[in-house]
Amino acid sequence: MKDLLENNLGFMGAGDSYEEANIAIVGFPMDFTVSFRPGTRMGPRQIRSVSEGIEEYSYYQDKDLVNASYYDCGDVRLPFGNVQESLERIYQVAKQLIKDDKFPVSLGGEHLVTYPVLKAFGEKYQDLVVIQFDAHADLREDYLGEPHSHATVMSKACQLFGGKNIYQLGIRSGTREEFQFAKENTNLYFEQVLEPIEGIVQAVKNRPVYITIDIDVVDPAFAPGTGTPEAGGCSSKELIHAMLGLKNLNVVGFDVVEVSPIFDVGDCTSLLAAKLVREAMLAFGT
Amino acid sequence: MKDLLENNLGFMGAGDSYEEANIAIVGFPMDFTVSFRPGTRMGPRQIRSVSEGIEEYSYYQDKDLVNASYYDCGDVRLPFGNVQESLERIYQVAKQLIKDDKFPVSLGGEHLVTYPVLKAFGEKYQDLVVIQFDAHADLREDYLGEPHSHATVMSKACQLFGGKNIYQLGIRSGTREEFQFAKENTNLYFEQVLEPIEGIVQAVKNRPVYITIDIDVVDPAFAPGTGTPEAGGCSSKELIHAMLGLKNLNVVGFDVVEVSPIFDVGDCTSLLAAKLVREAMLAFGT
Amino acid sequence: MKDLLENNLGFMGAGDSYEEANIAIVGFPMDFTVSFRPGTRMGPRQIRSVSEGIEEYSYYQDKDLVNASYYDCGDVRLPFGNVQESLERIYQVAKQLIKDDKFPVSLGGEHLVTYPVLKAFGEKYQDLVVIQFDAHADLREDYLGEPHSHATVMSKACQLFGGKNIYQLGIRSGTREEFQFAKENTNLYFEQVLEPIEGIVQAVKNRPVYITIDIDVVDPAFAPGTGTPEAGGCSSKELIHAMLGLKNLNVVGFDVVEVSPIFDVGDCTSLLAAKLVREAMLAFGT
Amino acid sequence: MKDLLENNLGFMGAGDSYEEANIAIVGFPMDFTVSFRPGTRMGPRQIRSVSEGIEEYSYYQDKDLVNASYYDCGDVRLPFGNVQESLERIYQVAKQLIKDDKFPVSLGGEHLVTYPVLKAFGEKYQDLVVIQFDAHADLREDYLGEPHSHATVMSKACQLFGGKNIYQLGIRSGTREEFQFAKENTNLYFEQVLEPIEGIVQAVKNRPVYITIDIDVVDPAFAPGTGTPEAGGCSSKELIHAMLGLKNLNVVGFDVVEVSPIFDVGDCTSLLAAKLVREAMLAFGT
Amino acid sequence: MKDLLENNLGFMGAGDSYEEANIAIVGFPMDFTVSFRPGTRMGPRQIRSVSEGIEEYSYYQDKDLVNASYYDCGDVRLPFGNVQESLERIYQVAKQLIKDDKFPVSLGGEHLVTYPVLKAFGEKYQDLVVIQFDAHADLREDYLGEPHSHATVMSKACQLFGGKNIYQLGIRSGTREEFQFAKENTNLYFEQVLEPIEGIVQAVKNRPVYITIDIDVVDPAFAPGTGTPEAGGCSSKELIHAMLGLKNLNVVGFDVVEVSPIFDVGDCTSLLAAKLVREAMLAFGT
Amino acid sequence: MKDLLENNLGFMGAGDSYEEANIAIVGFPMDFTVSFRPGTRMGPRQIRSVSEGIEEYSYYQDKDLVNASYYDCGDVRLPFGNVQESLERIYQVAKQLIKDDKFPVSLGGEHLVTYPVLKAFGEKYQDLVVIQFDAHADLREDYLGEPHSHATVMSKACQLFGGKNIYQLGIRSGTREEFQFAKENTNLYFEQVLEPIEGIVQAVKNRPVYITIDIDVVDPAFAPGTGTPEAGGCSSKELIHAMLGLKNLNVVGFDVVEVSPIFDVGDCTSLLAAKLVREAMLAFGT
Repeated sequence: MKDLLENNLGFMGAGDSYEEANIAIVGFPMDFTVSFRPGTRMGPRQIRSVSEGIEEYSYYQDKDLVNASYYDCGDVRLPFGNVQESLERIYQVAKQLIKDDKFPVSLGGEHLVTYPVLKAFGEKYQDLVVIQFDAHADLREDYLGEPHSHATVMSKACQLFGGKNIYQLGIRSGTREEFQFAKENTNLYFEQVLEPIEGIVQAVKNRPVYITIDIDVVDPAFAPGTGTPEAGGCSSKELIHAMLGLKNLNVVGFDVVEVSPIFDVGDCTSLLAAKLVREAMLAFGT
Repeated sequence: MKDLLENNLGFMGAGDSYEEANIAIVGFPMDFTVSFRPGTRMGPRQIRSVSEGIEEYSYYQDKDLVNASYYDCGDVRLPFGNVQESLERIYQVAKQLIKDDKFPVSLGGEHLVTYPVLKAFGEKYQDLVVIQFDAHADLREDYLGEPHSHATVMSKACQLFGGKNIYQLGIRSGTREEFQFAKENTNLYFEQVLEPIEGIVQAVKNRPVYITIDIDVVDPAFAPGTGTPEAGGCSSKELIHAMLGLKNLNVVGFDVVEVSPIFDVGDCTSLLAAKLVREAMLAFGT
Repeated sequence: MKDLLENNLGFMGAGDSYEEANIAIVGFPMDFTVSFRPGTRMGPRQIRSVSEGIEEYSYYQDKDLVNASYYDCGDVRLPFGNVQESLERIYQVAKQLIKDDKFPVSLGGEHLVTYPVLKAFGEKYQDLVVIQFDAHADLREDYLGEPHSHATVMSKACQLFGGKNIYQLGIRSGTREEFQFAKENTNLYFEQVLEPIEGIVQAVKNRPVYITIDIDVVDPAFAPGTGTPEAGGCSSKELIHAMLGLKNLNVVGFDVVEVSPIFDVGDCTSLLAAKLVREAMLAFGT
Repeated sequence: MKDLLENNLGFMGAGDSYEEANIAIVGFPMDFTVSFRPGTRMGPRQIRSVSEGIEEYSYYQDKDLVNASYYDCGDVRLPFGNVQESLERIYQVAKQLIKDDKFPVSLGGEHLVTYPVLKAFGEKYQDLVVIQFDAHADLREDYLGEPHSHATVMSKACQLFGGKNIYQLGIRSGTREEFQFAKENTNLYFEQVLEPIEGIVQAVKNRPVYITIDIDVVDPAFAPGTGTPEAGGCSSKELIHAMLGLKNLNVVGFDVVEVSPIFDVGDCTSLLAAKLVREAMLAFGT
Repeated sequence: MKDLLENNLGFMGAGDSYEEANIAIVGFPMDFTVSFRPGTRMGPRQIRSVSEGIEEYSYYQDKDLVNASYYDCGDVRLPFGNVQESLERIYQVAKQLIKDDKFPVSLGGEHLVTYPVLKAFGEKYQDLVVIQFDAHADLREDYLGEPHSHATVMSKACQLFGGKNIYQLGIRSGTREEFQFAKENTNLYFEQVLEPIEGIVQAVKNRPVYITIDIDVVDPAFAPGTGTPEAGGCSSKELIHAMLGLKNLNVVGFDVVEVSPIFDVGDCTSLLAAKLVREAMLAFGT
Repeated sequence: MKDLLENNLGFMGAGDSYEEANIAIVGFPMDFTVSFRPGTRMGPRQIRSVSEGIEEYSYYQDKDLVNASYYDCGDVRLPFGNVQESLERIYQVAKQLIKDDKFPVSLGGEHLVTYPVLKAFGEKYQDLVVIQFDAHADLREDYLGEPHSHATVMSKACQLFGGKNIYQLGIRSGTREEFQFAKENTNLYFEQVLEPIEGIVQAVKNRPVYITIDIDVVDPAFAPGTGTPEAGGCSSKELIHAMLGLKNLNVVGFDVVEVSPIFDVGDCTSLLAAKLVREAMLAFGT
């Protein structure tokens, strides 16, 4: 009976042993600080659910998940509405994964979940570089008085690693203050995702890199299932090639966030996220 | 040009003057403590939007909104993710409405928004009776460690007014502890909404009454657009008649909560809520 | 090849010959006078499309469409936005069907399409009785200044046949004036659909009867796909039995209107309409 | 980290050990013989996914899943389009579960998946009684020439156990031949679900019973997410009480089938199925 | 209480005073002459509703709505089904806005609403230039016999201002006659939106310009929520940059039409329209 | 009455006579071997239904369907779940159409339906060239043990005509084995659709050509309504121009498959397919 029923509730093809896996997939179903529309808490589950709709083999890289070793930890249990405690739990999980030498693949959830992961990484790598694909700068110091918000996550990353180690691609929305801050402190590329890649690769060299993809970096046409869709983005094809352009870097962690399945009848957003996870695992985690 | 463009962005037929109105409609777009699916923050706006789809006249009561005096305050601005501050703002607004002698009609949002409204009412009426239509008992002391949660709202009402002044109709879901607590402390009617009305009217007499309707009291067939649909509920017709059975009571405030438009393509839930608001304004607010 | 491909684009099992058919199905895809939400123009096509999802046999009546003779005429071509010309075309088609001794089964479209059909029938039967299942009285004299509107259709029927020959069942929405008019002129049954049937059958005797079903007579739970859903209605089961209670009357025409598929992801409304069409054809058209 | 991440991808609260469990949940994601609309293959996964939206405690029975012992086996892997091989695999799994003394709770998938389960049960219990809740008689001998079809499943059950041991409740659709067959061979209750229960309980006595619920037994209002919605059904409340009326019988297996999430934006159908699973596990599996 | 509740039912950040505003936003919820699918009457309301999902600041122009002065007039009340009277009312409103020296930003509704606005402008500017972004030429003389139709709006613009003053970009659908007419009379650019901009700017010089954007000019991928989606269009990014390429022209009025929210679960179309409104107000209205 | 009601249930403007038509449109509503999500059986019907939303004239080609002669045969009746018999029936229909000298335009349905059509063509043209637009290579020898599957269709085409006569454009997904096979046997173009056209035209010369378009060749943004959406595809505009680049070839048959309307609320996918059908009929069938 075993082979008819092998574990098939996690991400496509995930193995049964946490201990033996190089890569650990984990979901952070948090969405309670978002300002426009919640719903990303259902993201991790839906990404897993649709993952069976794509192949394990990638022609882009001529690699196969069959040769990768990954475990799906499921979702972290969060006390809904309690931001502090939720961030703390995410931090604890990330800390443990890093300690266990796993390559963490985090599924969001709102973008704020990236903060505790970065905090945990910061305790291992002081010189971490963060490469962000996003429509929004996320550089606010607070949002409606709240310091912990999906709109402040990169501002916190700047505090952790310094703005000059933050690369922001595809950005096309923010406040005047955010863009002013970016101009003075970070590396922000308006609208562009593919063009800056070569320069970034040369600048980063072999330092440890964390990649965070807010799925709204692509145009809402390609990812309608997200909390704050922002018109004027790139295509899925451009995003895939941009990410693969980073494959020779020393990437130590990866996340894809802000997938909100309820706004996406055809599940195109979740399927794009699942494909990005496959490519990331093949490019960086093996 | 004026008459071609008269204010039509609020609830159907709402007047232009807060000062002159007897009834004040206000939206509380909060949904960040819900455990299953968020989305009720879009409730108030959608209830207003569809309200133009129903008549101003009610044959049930032979009354017309044309003869009612009501103002639509819009939505309270909330710091998303900050529960404490959000509850405080709702409390301040409710306090002001009560002070200004308005009959408040609150549109949710998650059920927790009823708590600060009740708190404000408690400062005026120590002997307030709360009549709750709901699928869930909402009597937890905390939820995943959080004392402020949509699942704890009636537990807080009990603290404010004593469980014996709480009437819970249509309940069909809860923990063993909640039902045990209800048995010992509140008046809980399993599944029933129409049958208990006469007895409640006789028991309550002329004491001040607050009515809170969690739209999930009806079966999900009648209100699919809600956060935690619970099969086995009553029909819309039964709910309407149950509420109208209370029309001779001294009702001082009313809310309808947990309307989540994204799960309701045909807007039946928002339309039901709009009809309940019309009937409540005609029955209790005039 | 013929039998692999036999005509299957019309209503389930419809024959190939207009001449030989007793029953003629025709669609009136008009929806431009509706006040709330348009979309019923897609009704006729969707009712046909889902009709293959039900059986040809009815256990309710122990009859089978296999023994019925019906032709599907398709939809009338309408000049969108031109109410007068559209009504004229519908009238011409109805006139022809009556002249050709067909039993017309009309698929709406908004309720106003019933008016030209009734007008055509009025030229054959001066003593026609109209039995209307509807949530709305539709007795306005004009709507926003317009005499031709879906909200005025029964007012026009009264002009054609006299209000005392109009039976209105399931009504639960209208203006004060409409209900006043009904009280003085028509036979209106508030909320009820099943209870009045026996009395109506006895009153009508063997006079010619036209049945018009606005699908919104059932609660929106049972028919979310409609233009102006009105909470508090009956169930599908009650409607089916109410209609079948009329099966011994001399019914000469039938329509089902206000089906709006876009608000009904699961097509329950179109399927209910298709079932009503099947039952009507078996009960009245054979 | 363990407690933050405890297995949460299966049915709510399922344990980690197959060996120790009394109840085994398994999904049969098959939908390729359905005639109208496929989509039930996503049923099992969605029922699990929404199960976290209901409580573990049932006030109906005053019992709690916390005291139940159940394991979620996941979905059986099926060769899409190959009916014979798929039925064989389902049979093998059912056979093993019965051999391991588990109480099987099967999640469909189309109704045909019940056949191999019944076949496996037939090898243990020759005197099995089958109680079917369904809108359709499912008594065809073949469908478009196919002997294996969702429309033939109860016909096969009759071959296995004799029609007199088959109880069919809520039925309102079928061919003339099916109803004729039922009249002569099975126990079929037109439209009714609650009324026949007492008589069935008395007739069945302590013989082993298998309960199969086609979710379309309730009206499409209550379960829009199904392949062949049939208007005129009972309510969720009636179904729940009907099923619980069987709780003193010697029930040995249970399934709920024909849940098709794509036609149900608000997931009411999946949530109803999850609630039925909870009640069935508490009533029959413990 | 005021600041917790400041007017938030209109377009994001709209002021409270019509008199003091430079820009006047107004909705024309008309959709009754459309030939394919209605629904654009809900466009204006939804554009306002989602407008809170974008920023007030534009990095494209380094300008902020905080510094703009605009008032939201709400929607014009229309007699549904009466085309003539509806056009007359729109004309009266446009006339008044122009007289009051407002920069009108009109939200559609079907494209025909642009005609009465152009007519009102024509009485002030005989030399008006009209720049149309659209998938359809809209140059029919009549449509199914109707001279007033969404498919005839640019034909009417030609009558008002002469075809040589009409610029049509992104066009990819029409009848042979329309394209023949365009060839002889107007400036039509097949498929292109960005390429022709520079030439148009040079040709138009400082004459008054009206910009009308039919949202279907972008590919349906970018704006699925529209009445007649036409494959093969440009991207949102191209449209934004094309429109901004006109920012130095003397633009006197602007509209965005044919937004139909019911076909757009994720509201991408409404959000694109809201962003175009923001950019237009910043580029042309300040 | 005839002209008000002329046949309007088939593809827009289709004629009434099979005998006189040059082109025969036929639907193959089969979807039971798909591995991920079924639903394409509703494709043919929906493509017809939305076809009225596009023009009969094509500016791309300056040609008009008014001058084309085509008949819509409706859908082939299939025994659901029986793959062999379904393929046989499709083969019989294709055979007949070819014998009757029709240009067949097939509407899918899953991609496997192309196989029996190719088989029928192979009996007339041994030197047939197949040009496939697709996201997936579809070159498996079997799928989960099944030789007949949507994932094996091009593998079967290779057996019929030799891999060197197969051109595969837009491919971006497959197993390692499929890509290896393609490398050695077929002409596969990774991601590209427009670039290879010129070379293909030169290579093919005047040999007979069959074009099969799997709608998932475009990015899911442009065709969300499909069974296995694969991110990273081309745009609709590129696909249209690529197909038109083949217009001077000797094309003898055409199909568009894998349209699944349930995942596409706005019907963009069906509308794109309808436009491709129009362009194909104008380019190849006249």
